[in-house]
Amino acid sequence: MPVRSDVIETDGRQRVVIEGVWPEIDAGRFPIKRVVGEPVVVEADVYGDGHDRVAGVLRWRHHAESAWRETRLEYVDNDRWRASFTPDALGRWCYTLVAWVDRFQSWAHDLAKRVAAGQDVRVDLLIGAELVAAAAARATGADAERLRAMATVLREGGDAAVALALGDELAQLMWRHADRRFATAYDRELCVVVDPERARFSAWYELFPRSTAREPGRHGTFADVMARLPYVRDLGFDVLYLPPIHPIGRSFRKGRNNSPTAAPGDPGSPWAIGGPEGGHTAIHPELGTLDDFRRLVARARDLGIAVALDLAFQCSPDHPYVREHPEWFRWRPDGTIQYAENPPKKYQDIYPFDFESDAWRPLWEELNRVVRFWIAQGVQIFRVDNPHTKPFAFWEWLIADIKRDHPEIIFLSEAFTRPKVMYRLAKLGFTQSYTYFAWRQTKQELTEYLTELTQTPVREFFRPNFWPNTPDILTEQLQRGGRPAFVTRLVLAATLSSNYGIYGPAFELLEHRPLEPGREEYLDSEKYEIKCWDWDSPTSLRELIARVNTIRRQHPALHSNERLRFHPVDNDQLIAYSKQSADGADLLLVVVNLDPQWRQSGWLTLPLAELGLPADAPFTVHDLLDNARYRWQGPTNYVELHPHERPAHIFLVQS
Amino acid sequence: MPVRSDVIETDGRQRVVIEGVWPEIDAGRFPIKRVVGEPVVVEADVYGDGHDRVAGVLRWRHHAESAWRETRLEYVDNDRWRASFTPDALGRWCYTLVAWVDRFQSWAHDLAKRVAAGQDVRVDLLIGAELVAAAAARATGADAERLRAMATVLREGGDAAVALALGDELAQLMWRHADRRFATAYDRELCVVVDPERARFSAWYELFPRSTAREPGRHGTFADVMARLPYVRDLGFDVLYLPPIHPIGRSFRKGRNNSPTAAPGDPGSPWAIGGPEGGHTAIHPELGTLDDFRRLVARARDLGIAVALDLAFQCSPDHPYVREHPEWFRWRPDGTIQYAENPPKKYQDIYPFDFESDAWRPLWEELNRVVRFWIAQGVQIFRVDNPHTKPFAFWEWLIADIKRDHPEIIFLSEAFTRPKVMYRLAKLGFTQSYTYFAWRQTKQELTEYLTELTQTPVREFFRPNFWPNTPDILTEQLQRGGRPAFVTRLVLAATLSSNYGIYGPAFELLEHRPLEPGREEYLDSEKYEIKCWDWDSPTSLRELIARVNTIRRQHPALHSNERLRFHPVDNDQLIAYSKQSADGADLLLVVVNLDPQWRQSGWLTLPLAELGLPADAPFTVHDLLDNARYRWQGPTNYVELHPHERPAHIFLVQS
Repeated sequence: MPVRSDVIETDGRQRVVIEGVWPEIDAGRFPIKRVVGEPVVVEADVYGDGHDRVAGVLRWRHHAESAWRETRLEYVDNDRWRASFTPDALGRWCYTLVAWVDRFQSWAHDLAKRVAAGQDVRVDLLIGAELVAAAAARATGADAERLRAMATVLREGGDAAVALALGDELAQLMWRHADRRFATAYDRELCVVVDPERARFSAWYELFPRSTAREPGRHGTFADVMARLPYVRDLGFDVLYLPPIHPIGRSFRKGRNNSPTAAPGDPGSPWAIGGPEGGHTAIHPELGTLDDFRRLVARARDLGIAVALDLAFQCSPDHPYVREHPEWFRWRPDGTIQYAENPPKKYQDIYPFDFESDAWRPLWEELNRVVRFWIAQGVQIFRVDNPHTKPFAFWEWLIADIKRDHPEIIFLSEAFTRPKVMYRLAKLGFTQSYTYFAWRQTKQELTEYLTELTQTPVREFFRPNFWPNTPDILTEQLQRGGRPAFVTRLVLAATLSSNYGIYGPAFELLEHRPLEPGREEYLDSEKYEIKCWDWDSPTSLRELIARVNTIRRQHPALHSNERLRFHPVDNDQLIAYSKQSADGADLLLVVVNLDPQWRQSGWLTLPLAELGLPADAPFTVHDLLDNARYRWQGPTNYVELHPHERPAHIFLVQS
Repeated sequence: MPVRSDVIETDGRQRVVIEGVWPEIDAGRFPIKRVVGEPVVVEADVYGDGHDRVAGVLRWRHHAESAWRETRLEYVDNDRWRASFTPDALGRWCYTLVAWVDRFQSWAHDLAKRVAAGQDVRVDLLIGAELVAAAAARATGADAERLRAMATVLREGGDAAVALALGDELAQLMWRHADRRFATAYDRELCVVVDPERARFSAWYELFPRSTAREPGRHGTFADVMARLPYVRDLGFDVLYLPPIHPIGRSFRKGRNNSPTAAPGDPGSPWAIGGPEGGHTAIHPELGTLDDFRRLVARARDLGIAVALDLAFQCSPDHPYVREHPEWFRWRPDGTIQYAENPPKKYQDIYPFDFESDAWRPLWEELNRVVRFWIAQGVQIFRVDNPHTKPFAFWEWLIADIKRDHPEIIFLSEAFTRPKVMYRLAKLGFTQSYTYFAWRQTKQELTEYLTELTQTPVREFFRPNFWPNTPDILTEQLQRGGRPAFVTRLVLAATLSSNYGIYGPAFELLEHRPLEPGREEYLDSEKYEIKCWDWDSPTSLRELIARVNTIRRQHPALHSNERLRFHPVDNDQLIAYSKQSADGADLLLVVVNLDPQWRQSGWLTLPLAELGLPADAPFTVHDLLDNARYRWQGPTNYVELHPHERPAHIFLVQS
């Protein structure tokens, strides 16, 4: 329906209230998130004074369009109304609501009651004729003509007039030409950021390019990474995330195992960005050239893999910015630059930017230029290092500015910090976010955390990305739990969250040695040295990972977290949950043994009716991991899992 | 602390976020409510990026003041902060928040850690000296001088400098002269409407003045009402609410029991307002004169009773407005004015105003004038008839406009309609509201309803007023439940809600005959005839009512609903709840037998620690209704209530 040009007056005759609009984050301060083709269902309380009927529309448009499109609000109950629209293009979309007292509907509703009571309705039909004639005056062309004719019929009265008054044709015409003079426009325009599908459904693989050489001791290159791409594709990942690929500083360079002094030949941490060869837009010479990098990105894309870069906005003391822009750093009274600290710890190899610098604006612009530089090389995904240590306003501006020109770009927030800060970063623009998943391990912890992420307003703006490990996080569970712990954490990450990732090949090779007991740092961490991995180890989890990623791709139920439901099992070591596709056709049930040591069994109860399963007939659960099939019947069925044989089920449920 | 004059810049260096502010209704669209002397506790999430410390203030002022007062925010947990202020005058008050990164506190906090780790802090002390010198430049007078001296000490270094740096004096001075250049001001100013104490704590008595004559058949007068005032005072009520006191229309006047035709001498409904003698600012001649009315108001005030008038914005066909302002009514095509209807029912004795009239503005002004007219006669409380059938915008404007000049005025909303509409009316200004109490009768219904009213955001804007009966509402429970039902509904209303009322003397005289079975209308309703009540009937509940109202007055626990708690009893016919005063000193426990027929008993469990009661020593519960005392011990104790002997306990709990 085209949008009306009526001027909506703000006057005392605007009798309709619109409130309780959902989704709406912080009174409209922040957008919600969707992917292309995903519906936005909008609800609101809409009501007026007295007993008159109200009517209204959801208005929506792409940010770049000026005209609103409209969808009629449908009544739910208790003064709640609903309508939806489905964005079909990337970028920002807007939505709002308009509602009004519908005098025609009120009149028709009352007329029906009067007729049913056998009252004389001659005067009422005359009142209706006035309403219809007024609509005719608002309409043009055939509608106007038809409405004029109908007003005449009403004026004449009798059974024909009553039939016309209560019929569909008049109702439709009166809806099209409703009297919106005193309509109430909701006082906020709300936003939805529409991202590519990969924002909601992605499988990430992180590797250090310098550790991809076939021969021990050699520094890996982009060419080596290219040779690894088929491996990554066969594992089923569609994002390849590379830690920083820039020149690494020499001053205060860290040695192996984070030693404060580097030995000759130690490569340093890739996060100590910047050297004589350049800074954030330069390539570490030993990795190759910018051309090599572009070739890698293109080849990956051919294999269905997007290369993700690391945005770590900090400098080594040797970064060109230190010389060219001393005003972007904080200076100490002794004439040195303030290095990173967490007193009493000192990180003298890293200079943070001073975002309170008077020159904050050129600094913002320059960092924006860095992002645009890499977009120009074909990069569409950025994993952002420690965004919570830079100002919120900076990220909001940067991400909005970039996405205005490049709505396809994905930013992953690497903020492991307090919950409100993590949610704030998501609200102000980050497409995906790291989470507390690594530390949510018991059934209760997982259930509570996933309920918060998927069943509260958080779901509208925070897209979780679950990582069982990262180069900084080797949980005690993985250190001690052996292969069963790796398998179950993989299955949990990959099925609880539609976005997940692993840091490999440490993960598939079951790397679990900590720097020291009680620490989550890896022993001989790749952050400080070049590794040569045994990619083809017979104990690798690569086949299982490939299987899980295939299941993810083939089953739409796993492409979102929207219909995640936990199901009771009478054993706290067994966790069970299902995901269902939007159309209900694809139903997966996952059962995981959280105990890496012992066989666990229990009775699992499913809400059959809610899941669309028969109450009184058997149904099949088909384990997509090992192809076993079981016939179940009724809501409660037996499950048993052995950590070393079969630590998890991923069931396809079929009735 | 006086307010600072710093200009708060909006720039990229504002690093602090203020969000999740509470109380805040609909993003600040509506005010919250308090009474004079009642604190406003404000909480917010306040945090910045990185690890710097943040600090902030709650700002607040009376609407009529231009300068803010400030109270420092105290940390609660999880990035939550809190401060409070206590309005000490009627009217609108505003509050908001300001917060900033506190570089001095961050520095001092880090310095303590460095010192503890035995690090060389000479450069750090120089950094501190710069911060202190900058504060000295912001300060004046003695503070500036002292800060300059302290900067010198810090510059000199050594143990004296460290002691100074970590001491209280410097912290206090630096707080007073904090660097607020990049402070974040919360982007909303929130409002609280501060009402007189009676807005929160009141006992209402409704009577029909025309039924106050001593002799049967005579029309009561204001003089008769004056003679009744000692009765009302002895019952313990402090608001006397009179149905409309204006001339009553003749056209289509209703007869006894709402008969469509009045017999000669039938007085008509007081809500059919307006006759040849005048309209909304006139007095029904048989009641007396305006002077008589003013005398009544003054005499009532001397007895501690406020007279409340009924604002029923509608007209009889004989109202002067019909002749003088035909544009304020809706005209039908047959040349008649649209009367009130609920098809197929017709109320031809009532003309509603047409608030969609082009002349809506003069109509609003005139109704405003009506309210001000009665305020000029000494009226301070209005019970508003059916506000939900007039536009929301009208009420918001009217109440705000009146309360701007007369902040002491109380408006009670008589909207028995859908929950969102009732809450909206409260949000937009009504001081108190009628509720669903009459129809909440089981333990579960009462518990759920009171929980909604007192434990959710509703408590901030909706002040319930509980009525067991009204001239329109005689519940089936009262029709059938006999004296025990009247007693228990009185005790529930008077103790669950700090505002309550009864329609008397029907209530105390146990009037319970319905017009017909299944209807809530009274037989021979006073709305359509003059009654002569047997005020001194020996079966009257007047002594019980007086006792309950005395208990209410004497016990601060019953002056608010803020600390209402329900307590489990293992018998669904027994409901138990406590209320406690703000200081905890006054603790009342109410137990009511909801069964009007049978003795009920059960075990009641109290959360002793939460209530400040001893876990391992006896305590006394003293029934203030009949002076019985019981020794209880431990959380669980026995209760037993007989409907005809003692249907309820109101215990004073003393340890």
